[in-house]
Amino acid sequence: EFVARSVGVCTMMRLPLKSSPEGLDAAFVGVPLDIGTSNRPGTRFGPRRIREESVLLRTINPSTGALPFQSHLVADIGDVNVNLYNLQDSCRLIREAYQKIAAANCIPLTLGGDHTITYPILQALAGKHGPVGLLHVDAHTDTADKALGEKLYHGTPFRRCVEEGLLDCKRVVQIGIRGSSAILNPYKYSRDQGFRVVLAEDCWLKSLVPLMGEVRQQMGKKPIYISFDIDALDPAYAPGTGTPEIAGLTPSQALEIIRGCQGLNVVGCDLVEVAPMYDPSGNTALLAANLLFEMLCVLPKVKTA
Amino acid sequence: EFVARSVGVCTMMRLPLKSSPEGLDAAFVGVPLDIGTSNRPGTRFGPRRIREESVLLRTINPSTGALPFQSHLVADIGDVNVNLYNLQDSCRLIREAYQKIAAANCIPLTLGGDHTITYPILQALAGKHGPVGLLHVDAHTDTADKALGEKLYHGTPFRRCVEEGLLDCKRVVQIGIRGSSAILNPYKYSRDQGFRVVLAEDCWLKSLVPLMGEVRQQMGKKPIYISFDIDALDPAYAPGTGTPEIAGLTPSQALEIIRGCQGLNVVGCDLVEVAPMYDPSGNTALLAANLLFEMLCVLPKVKTA
Amino acid sequence: EFVARSVGVCTMMRLPLKSSPEGLDAAFVGVPLDIGTSNRPGTRFGPRRIREESVLLRTINPSTGALPFQSHLVADIGDVNVNLYNLQDSCRLIREAYQKIAAANCIPLTLGGDHTITYPILQALAGKHGPVGLLHVDAHTDTADKALGEKLYHGTPFRRCVEEGLLDCKRVVQIGIRGSSAILNPYKYSRDQGFRVVLAEDCWLKSLVPLMGEVRQQMGKKPIYISFDIDALDPAYAPGTGTPEIAGLTPSQALEIIRGCQGLNVVGCDLVEVAPMYDPSGNTALLAANLLFEMLCVLPKVKTA
Amino acid sequence: EFVARSVGVCTMMRLPLKSSPEGLDAAFVGVPLDIGTSNRPGTRFGPRRIREESVLLRTINPSTGALPFQSHLVADIGDVNVNLYNLQDSCRLIREAYQKIAAANCIPLTLGGDHTITYPILQALAGKHGPVGLLHVDAHTDTADKALGEKLYHGTPFRRCVEEGLLDCKRVVQIGIRGSSAILNPYKYSRDQGFRVVLAEDCWLKSLVPLMGEVRQQMGKKPIYISFDIDALDPAYAPGTGTPEIAGLTPSQALEIIRGCQGLNVVGCDLVEVAPMYDPSGNTALLAANLLFEMLCVLPKVKTA
Amino acid sequence: EFVARSVGVCTMMRLPLKSSPEGLDAAFVGVPLDIGTSNRPGTRFGPRRIREESVLLRTINPSTGALPFQSHLVADIGDVNVNLYNLQDSCRLIREAYQKIAAANCIPLTLGGDHTITYPILQALAGKHGPVGLLHVDAHTDTADKALGEKLYHGTPFRRCVEEGLLDCKRVVQIGIRGSSAILNPYKYSRDQGFRVVLAEDCWLKSLVPLMGEVRQQMGKKPIYISFDIDALDPAYAPGTGTPEIAGLTPSQALEIIRGCQGLNVVGCDLVEVAPMYDPSGNTALLAANLLFEMLCVLPKVKTA
Amino acid sequence: EFVARSVGVCTMMRLPLKSSPEGLDAAFVGVPLDIGTSNRPGTRFGPRRIREESVLLRTINPSTGALPFQSHLVADIGDVNVNLYNLQDSCRLIREAYQKIAAANCIPLTLGGDHTITYPILQALAGKHGPVGLLHVDAHTDTADKALGEKLYHGTPFRRCVEEGLLDCKRVVQIGIRGSSAILNPYKYSRDQGFRVVLAEDCWLKSLVPLMGEVRQQMGKKPIYISFDIDALDPAYAPGTGTPEIAGLTPSQALEIIRGCQGLNVVGCDLVEVAPMYDPSGNTALLAANLLFEMLCVLPKVKTA
Ligand SMILES: [Mn+2]
Ligand SMILES: [Mn+2]
Ligand SMILES: [Mn+2]
Ligand SMILES: [Mn+2]
Ligand SMILES: [Mn+2]
Ligand SMILES: [Mn+2]
Ligand SMILES: [Mn+2]
Ligand SMILES: [Mn+2]
Ligand SMILES: [Mn+2]
Ligand SMILES: [Mn+2]
Ligand SMILES: [Mn+2]
Ligand SMILES: [Mn+2]
Repeated sequence: EFVARSVGVCTMMRLPLKSSPEGLDAAFVGVPLDIGTSNRPGTRFGPRRIREESVLLRTINPSTGALPFQSHLVADIGDVNVNLYNLQDSCRLIREAYQKIAAANCIPLTLGGDHTITYPILQALAGKHGPVGLLHVDAHTDTADKALGEKLYHGTPFRRCVEEGLLDCKRVVQIGIRGSSAILNPYKYSRDQGFRVVLAEDCWLKSLVPLMGEVRQQMGKKPIYISFDIDALDPAYAPGTGTPEIAGLTPSQALEIIRGCQGLNVVGCDLVEVAPMYDPSGNTALLAANLLFEMLCVLPKVKTA
Repeated sequence: EFVARSVGVCTMMRLPLKSSPEGLDAAFVGVPLDIGTSNRPGTRFGPRRIREESVLLRTINPSTGALPFQSHLVADIGDVNVNLYNLQDSCRLIREAYQKIAAANCIPLTLGGDHTITYPILQALAGKHGPVGLLHVDAHTDTADKALGEKLYHGTPFRRCVEEGLLDCKRVVQIGIRGSSAILNPYKYSRDQGFRVVLAEDCWLKSLVPLMGEVRQQMGKKPIYISFDIDALDPAYAPGTGTPEIAGLTPSQALEIIRGCQGLNVVGCDLVEVAPMYDPSGNTALLAANLLFEMLCVLPKVKTA
Repeated sequence: EFVARSVGVCTMMRLPLKSSPEGLDAAFVGVPLDIGTSNRPGTRFGPRRIREESVLLRTINPSTGALPFQSHLVADIGDVNVNLYNLQDSCRLIREAYQKIAAANCIPLTLGGDHTITYPILQALAGKHGPVGLLHVDAHTDTADKALGEKLYHGTPFRRCVEEGLLDCKRVVQIGIRGSSAILNPYKYSRDQGFRVVLAEDCWLKSLVPLMGEVRQQMGKKPIYISFDIDALDPAYAPGTGTPEIAGLTPSQALEIIRGCQGLNVVGCDLVEVAPMYDPSGNTALLAANLLFEMLCVLPKVKTA
Repeated sequence: EFVARSVGVCTMMRLPLKSSPEGLDAAFVGVPLDIGTSNRPGTRFGPRRIREESVLLRTINPSTGALPFQSHLVADIGDVNVNLYNLQDSCRLIREAYQKIAAANCIPLTLGGDHTITYPILQALAGKHGPVGLLHVDAHTDTADKALGEKLYHGTPFRRCVEEGLLDCKRVVQIGIRGSSAILNPYKYSRDQGFRVVLAEDCWLKSLVPLMGEVRQQMGKKPIYISFDIDALDPAYAPGTGTPEIAGLTPSQALEIIRGCQGLNVVGCDLVEVAPMYDPSGNTALLAANLLFEMLCVLPKVKTA
Repeated sequence: EFVARSVGVCTMMRLPLKSSPEGLDAAFVGVPLDIGTSNRPGTRFGPRRIREESVLLRTINPSTGALPFQSHLVADIGDVNVNLYNLQDSCRLIREAYQKIAAANCIPLTLGGDHTITYPILQALAGKHGPVGLLHVDAHTDTADKALGEKLYHGTPFRRCVEEGLLDCKRVVQIGIRGSSAILNPYKYSRDQGFRVVLAEDCWLKSLVPLMGEVRQQMGKKPIYISFDIDALDPAYAPGTGTPEIAGLTPSQALEIIRGCQGLNVVGCDLVEVAPMYDPSGNTALLAANLLFEMLCVLPKVKTA
Repeated sequence: EFVARSVGVCTMMRLPLKSSPEGLDAAFVGVPLDIGTSNRPGTRFGPRRIREESVLLRTINPSTGALPFQSHLVADIGDVNVNLYNLQDSCRLIREAYQKIAAANCIPLTLGGDHTITYPILQALAGKHGPVGLLHVDAHTDTADKALGEKLYHGTPFRRCVEEGLLDCKRVVQIGIRGSSAILNPYKYSRDQGFRVVLAEDCWLKSLVPLMGEVRQQMGKKPIYISFDIDALDPAYAPGTGTPEIAGLTPSQALEIIRGCQGLNVVGCDLVEVAPMYDPSGNTALLAANLLFEMLCVLPKVKTA
């Protein structure tokens, strides 16, 4: 290490800042939007704080042997500009930005932002790849129809995706789901679509390595997207988020989930719902930065030592 | 004091919670909206936290002799429901709610929320009273035309009001204005309308009692509205806000401004832009609660001892 | 959801605020007292903050199928007034308030407050039901005799209860006990009374479902009270408390404990020792709110889907 | 400076820790009690945090030339033991401790603790010196009769002192008084006793040097006590306190007040109401430590360069 | 504003990030070093947080009419790499970096870091310009000889500069000086060199416009450097710093000081001692960002509207 | 308990403060140094805050039966003076201080401070005992060669120890190791020396009792040193540290590790890397205090009940 950790303008993992995805194999990109948030706001500052804490990361993954930067050209391409006063328009801006990223054959690793953003991201990626498989790690299914009369907010992205045919519903797995509910069977919609719903309580005190073996089987070789809501984890590990639910996953389970995707055809990933103001130590953002690094390490064609 | 300060569900000043403005002379009402915020969000929790800190307030104002609760029937009427995902629709909901308050001849004292809300409030009040005078205390003129392509956000309410003829522009005073600017003459729009713009630097180290004498002259007997953005104060006194500007007003100046309104025909007031997450001590909310109490004390027909 | 989460004066789970327990099957009630605290104060603001975070809760429990609000008439009946300068007098005020609640045949779900309050609550409930069984979840046995010369503080409630015959000692279970001690055998008093003491270290890395099977056997059909000190949980999950002890229970174990009470004759519950100032994220209060909801879900006659 | 500021167990100003006041001219002593607090608790940790921040202080006062440690033998004598569960008993413990300090002819400089403690301190000091003059700096007069039915809490100490004849009422000055009130004329009691009440609003934007000239005249050569409630200052300077009032004094005014006591016959001083949990930066405690140092610098017989 | 404030990797004022000072008229540059700190560390993260909060700034100064970006080519050139384990070596690295900046005829506006850094910066600038005048705004003179046996730390930079002939001592002014002292006459060294020392207490409640008129006279047309320690301000305005002193300057005085430099031959500026961990709201960093912008606005040849 | 927890100057566990190790069997000693820190500073305040939170500890360990204070004469001997501006010199000061402690036959239990300090501590202890076995609990191996050109910082102590022959390399165990890496095989150096490296992922969801059985075998009867870096634990349990790594150990595993050392010939222990500013609740320091108490409980000749 020749540069002190306090030194430098904060890009993700201190990667070069590029203005375009052209020529990149993969790119970190921020979507600093939080106006789809139903409770505590602040995820607009998630990308900024994740970048800041990511200076603790080093480039090699000794646990898996992955050498991402010896395999791929990766950069930080900054943030998508968003319209903080209009959620619909923000979705358009995000979709258009990701269409460009997809067109450049660059795999996006997204720093959220609230979970609304996954909808326009998947519009762009399904535009390129067709309906994708989805590994969705979250406390919530995010398959509501509406809230406060609106079709778009962070509780609805996956229903919108289903309605638009963006998902290959037989290859959708939701892990970490829990919490009280406004309706009797909150998982019915997901299961009716063919999603596998893995409740948090079925994960308590367990290694998720066996589950991920099944998931890999299910996903096969076709494109999948990983959408990781930090609130999947227990609030002890990730206090800085807007709609925390008790009794969630652990970081070791999060690592088992992501590392379990090695070999899959991952076409994009996101880590959403980091709200820094509820995270005075910065450790939620640090966790997010680590999980994004782990996602990078399981992208297709990443070499291992 | 027969009830301990930690006791009870928090209404403003522990007033009774009413579901309607009918029969009330004045009412505290919250507008927990923050999606018009350009920088740090969180004012959606302003009303909640102002109510919480308001338990420190007692009912009489020994500095002015005002006896508001011996003069008026006052209650907390809860919050306007807002649409957190759609700013336009929220403005509609706020306007409709305040039309009902105005129709009940109840003077609203509003707990914000970001400054966008003053626009629909003034739509409602001008609907009843005709164009109103405005005492606007703020670091910013809030007379921008657009941001990010949008006409509605917390930087534009007073331009929208001018355009709709809601203000009696010869009786508009803006106090506390300061800060860097994107344009050469940021006060031109205000002055072109006939507003009086009092810069913060013209207030430094001064009593504002003389200024308020002039303001009372200017306002006369016709209806006026008081809109108080907590960022008018220096961030030392009001850290919990989203777009702080250095070198602002002091709390004693804030008191001089509000107390200087005694005798005016105040038809409504608001205190906006309290963002609790940036205020770990709660003292910004406490300041806001005090200023709202002082506004109550200068409403028409409040008796003094 | 037709009301945004930031909207409204905060009652527990946004329930109606009632001034009396009459006609209610169960009621949330706050006891905002902290002068029985031996270390960090602040639990006087526990009820306020638990109510605030409880807006995240929805009304149905999909994990257990419980439909509490379709089964029972439940409200928030506000706080017991306490005497913040006199612990003895506060105990009297609490006892009298709970005698009224008991007389109304309303099951109290208490938001504490420090653990001292369980003593006057049990005086009231045992006055109605006779000696009750007790499920006591805590890091501490709270069976000291005195501290600083005083018989009343948050370390003594259960010894006082034993002395007054309020407990059916053969049906008392204490779970989560741990920590350093001033005496050689700190569990002796409990065991001498016939209590079952389950140490935290006997819970590490284990599901508590089997334990709760035994507890249900032991409790039988007679009345029991659940007293849940948030410090039973590891401080990682519940930082906001006054006398934390390392290496505690997990939220999933807390859920197993409470859900394991289904079918028992629960006549009252409390959740105590939430000290918000040590909980900047609010997540300790959120955990408490969830546990109180889970307690509601296991009250007698709550229907399940 | 031969010792780094982070080094060492924290005594006040790194003075030696003594177990007795014998042989000392003056002593810092803590009273870590907060159960007389009406709103936010936490002053029990005031002495601890004031000591911690006092490591920034050096031994000479260049502004006044005072050389306290070349004039007097001064030490930290630790804390008075208090009964955290019984305010009456705590008052007895404090009184007895200060009787010993007074008997040793040692001038106490007290680190509070809530303001209740000044009552037993004055019992002890008036026991030695007879009725004392009082310079009371505070947002509140602290002359209530009762609250919640109790005669003892932090709002009543000076009425209790009057009733017991501990004060030379013609030589009592209260500075910084302000805030809303439960009664019509909240200053009447003080003025009826002959106290001079200086409102905060009469201090705004003014040097207090002239006022202190008058105060010195009034106090004459007879014994006086200085009781400084940190809430006399504006909450911007002293956020860490339990009952803050807006629009208070400034630190420069606080210095003018204390430095204005030079030449008076000061027989004791206190600095009360520092609540560290509301002061994340530690700067309220630092302010308190500085004010205590300044009080030391005006004790009788302190030499100046 | 076409870009939302939450968008983008944080450079100072969102300026382009350049890798070299070549071709720039002025540049913001960070020195993220804090191992010269005597008390609370953390200024290593000062540059990062100042950049973050600087997104609130706009490009024009309506108070002075300054149009810095229409006058000069300005960029953010990132941070000097520092050696966090060796203060001597860090000084070398800083000196070498600033020699390059000076050689490029680029005026550095430095984001500190602790005050030690001004010494190597002045080595570099005096190497180009010869001995410079100095406007030093600080609570401390920073002219100690040693601490803990070391010649280099944040209390000694200006004595080191004097010893090496880097300062034109007749044109050195220190403003804001205050606080307790380890020696009898802490200002003697400064005054013996010919410095003007303006104590904070001589600034209380005063406009500093007259003082700055005198300073401009004294500085004349020869090169001057502005070194602004944020602790010159009262801790109410700047809580986030390591060695705060009570009763300091106000932000309006800070603006008067910097704006009073208009017309002087400013060859470099710094803003040091921002320690973000003691500043949960971010407002100390925001103040620092504003002051740096104001310094930019008084650089030679900045046009005014 | 006859003394309230808020009472008294904070020594470790309220032990007497001694100025010398002479005559003591064991002593708590602080090393308030943080200039070897690569990321977030602040461990200089670790000893202070650990002492503060240690007031919650009582003197007996009911889990193991250990009665340390009935077995040994133990005191707090304050802090080693350090040179905050010179890491080399600090190492010298620490080494010399520990040579005196070792010469007094007093076992040091160290409150850190960053991990650099273990190097000079082991220089002193190996000077007395010869090469020692090492139980090193940490997220990091701390066996780097250099950083930023320096041989001394908190990432290198154990390589320095190896080079100087201070360790009995066949009896070195490192537990909890994890995280991204700058080199391909970050554990190679350790294993090449003969260290046993136990990765965190091999500890997930497991009791470490079996591992510790093996460790006891390996350590035998010869002297061992325990060096416990708080970042070995998951950041959920220990947020207050400078270089946190996700997915770490749990407090129950930490207890199993330390309690598993019973019977070994422990000649010294440390608990390092507590950075209080990242720990608003104080619970990291409380955890550290508990672990230090547990280390005391396994010192040779500590009796058990
Ligand atoms: Mn989600
Ligand atoms: Mn979620
Ligand atoms: Mn505004
Ligand atoms: Mn504003
Ligand atoms: Mn308890
Ligand atoms: Mn407990
Ligand atoms: Mn007082
Ligand atoms: Mn007061
Ligand atoms: Mn300085
Ligand atoms: Mn300074
Ligand atoms: Mn380490
Ligand atoms: Mn480590």
